[in-house]
Amino acid sequence: MLPQTIQSLINILMKLSGVGEKTAQRYAFEMLNWRDEELESMSETVGELHIKIKHCEKCGNLTESKYCDICSDTSRNDKLICVVGSVKDLIAIERTQQYNGIYHVLKGLISITNGVYPEDLEIDQLVDKCVENKVEEVILALNLNVDGETTALYIAKKLESKNIQSSRLASGLPMGGNIEFADQLTLLKAFEGRKRF
Amino acid sequence: MLPQTIQSLINILMKLSGVGEKTAQRYAFEMLNWRDEELESMSETVGELHIKIKHCEKCGNLTESKYCDICSDTSRNDKLICVVGSVKDLIAIERTQQYNGIYHVLKGLISITNGVYPEDLEIDQLVDKCVENKVEEVILALNLNVDGETTALYIAKKLESKNIQSSRLASGLPMGGNIEFADQLTLLKAFEGRKRF
Repeated sequence: MLPQTIQSLINILMKLSGVGEKTAQRYAFEMLNWRDEELESMSETVGELHIKIKHCEKCGNLTESKYCDICSDTSRNDKLICVVGSVKDLIAIERTQQYNGIYHVLKGLISITNGVYPEDLEIDQLVDKCVENKVEEVILALNLNVDGETTALYIAKKLESKNIQSSRLASGLPMGGNIEFADQLTLLKAFEGRKRF
Repeated sequence: MLPQTIQSLINILMKLSGVGEKTAQRYAFEMLNWRDEELESMSETVGELHIKIKHCEKCGNLTESKYCDICSDTSRNDKLICVVGSVKDLIAIERTQQYNGIYHVLKGLISITNGVYPEDLEIDQLVDKCVENKVEEVILALNLNVDGETTALYIAKKLESKNIQSSRLASGLPMGGNIEFADQLTLLKAFEGRKRF
């Protein structure tokens, strides 16, 4: 019923998770009203996405060069490494503008159920890199679920055997959080981690 | 912080209504994981959107040819015209698979507040077309709000002066609708339009 080109665009947009036919149709019709330059710019950007975007050879962050902005920044403390499970997590941490070390982006998390083992994540290479660069502290900023905790523990043990200090993020009530609505585990962690005034 | 190409893509995606920074970022990161062919296909489709998609010269529907699929379909009854306010409304009606006439897509609705007057919508041309083609009935399928009702009334009067029959869609409770939750106006219309068994 719809012209081929629009239907194709709708089908492509529906590949995005959370975008159903109605939303894709809405997006496509909106794009029909965009200016020529806007459509050209989008066409170009999408076309060169895979060509331009690479992983930083040092830390795994996204970059258009050999090394990412963070690894290239000499004002960053390269004796402090923050290990994250994805680039999205790195972005979230960077947004706080408080962390001055560098990163290491894992290629996922250890997951027995999904068949992801330590070898797949090149954890030995990470440990070797830490030893080589005389890293002083490794912050394991991994998600607080089974896979994240397993991965953090595994890396921590490996680092311990090389006498490298590792740490994890504090867990407890989120800021603005309600005690009434907190789950038991979070509340327990908040109690355990309580601080004196 | 993000590589230029990804940031550009995020900025472009944020032009879509209802897409904020978080959603755009999610879309961009997902697209990064698409296969090359998928990105190429999207780039191409977006790039040729304005070039390929035109308005049907007869009814205003979207098409890649001079006339749309509906106007080109000789099995359609061209003595019956359904006037709609947008291509989206046309699609919704086509989805019912029950209407066998043709359409006329208005370039919007009369709106005093937004400065859209009858002349802007080329209503005289619509009426002339109906007279010329000896149209038997014009169904005014316009939204049931102030602008839609104003436009419908205006067109109906014009058609009446040329002795062309016009009609409007029935209003009342939507199917599956709850009397308890219906607004007063809908309930009033449902009473007024009640039918004998």
